[in-house]
Amino acid sequence: MTRGRFITFEGIDGSGKSTQARLLAAYLRSKGIEVVLTREPGGSPGAEEIRRLLVEGNPDRWSAETEILLFTAARRDHLEKTIRPALERGSTVISDRFADSTRVYQGAARGELRGLVDRLHEAVIGIEPDLTLIIDMDPSRALERGLARKSGEDRFEEMGEGFQHRLRDGFHRLAQDFPGRCHLVDGQRDPDSIAAEVARIADAAL
Amino acid sequence: MTRGRFITFEGIDGSGKSTQARLLAAYLRSKGIEVVLTREPGGSPGAEEIRRLLVEGNPDRWSAETEILLFTAARRDHLEKTIRPALERGSTVISDRFADSTRVYQGAARGELRGLVDRLHEAVIGIEPDLTLIIDMDPSRALERGLARKSGEDRFEEMGEGFQHRLRDGFHRLAQDFPGRCHLVDGQRDPDSIAAEVARIADAAL
Repeated sequence: MTRGRFITFEGIDGSGKSTQARLLAAYLRSKGIEVVLTREPGGSPGAEEIRRLLVEGNPDRWSAETEILLFTAARRDHLEKTIRPALERGSTVISDRFADSTRVYQGAARGELRGLVDRLHEAVIGIEPDLTLIIDMDPSRALERGLARKSGEDRFEEMGEGFQHRLRDGFHRLAQDFPGRCHLVDGQRDPDSIAAEVARIADAAL
Repeated sequence: MTRGRFITFEGIDGSGKSTQARLLAAYLRSKGIEVVLTREPGGSPGAEEIRRLLVEGNPDRWSAETEILLFTAARRDHLEKTIRPALERGSTVISDRFADSTRVYQGAARGELRGLVDRLHEAVIGIEPDLTLIIDMDPSRALERGLARKSGEDRFEEMGEGFQHRLRDGFHRLAQDFPGRCHLVDGQRDPDSIAAEVARIADAAL
């Protein structure tokens, strides 16, 4: 059996990437492909428990260094329990966020810690997606949408609009750093138009 | 103001190290020294939340790699919020477990992951204690005492007696690796005799 494909969606909070992840999963399933749709932080029972420590509470609850360790712990559990077993049985895995979020959120936007993020990734994660869709969005609009959800998981949104602008810049640089697998998609259109572009990119890449 | 001293207690579960940490704190306080008595995993509000993920639940809940990341995350928070501020205001800090526990529990006894433990320690912790007391105890007796507590925090005790023997060997090797700061103390005596030896070692070392 061939190993499945690993697709990730990235972008700032409120960019619409979770919707697009769901729409791509539905599109691929309609073609008869077995898809595991998952998310980070979380995606396995242990990682979901770590998620609660990360996305709830005060913005200054953890330092960026502690955050990087917690996100990497959650990612390792997600990889062991969900992603790797699914890929090995030939399923396509679509994850709403993965290592690129840590590269951008903790590695670029919250301090110059990209070196630490990269060393940890190399030591305990290792895997990169086959395809990454970065849904690009003006932070002012995205922040409005993200906070409007009132999910109780607003710790990063509450870091403010300046932070969201640094994140968007970080995702743009990421797309330049990994031009083979990363595709920047304009998220400021109706969801169906975005989904059509995402499906075209996925069909061409996989 | 001079920086305070940092003392740690190590040993297998049920060795009596927590009792000895308390007795040394009382002894130093009786001499007018300001002491912060703390513990790992935990020792700060955030680290105590991570502790619950680590010490409760099934023994196979986390892989050794995920555990190392979670322990290091908790240690970083403990260091930032509790240990470093106390040392900087001149207090003596006594911690019931610190980095040596991760070196032995995850680095030696649960697989050959000592290299990962050391790289993470160097990257985000850095500090070593001024003095480490390793309370040595026959695993059969210690395991009986540890499990007898029924604390609900028995995840590591439930890994069995073979695991506890590997831990004891690991602590013996640790004492050889860091002969300057690590002192092996016979824990199979009455607590007051042990406390008297610990106090002598602390007086001589600090």
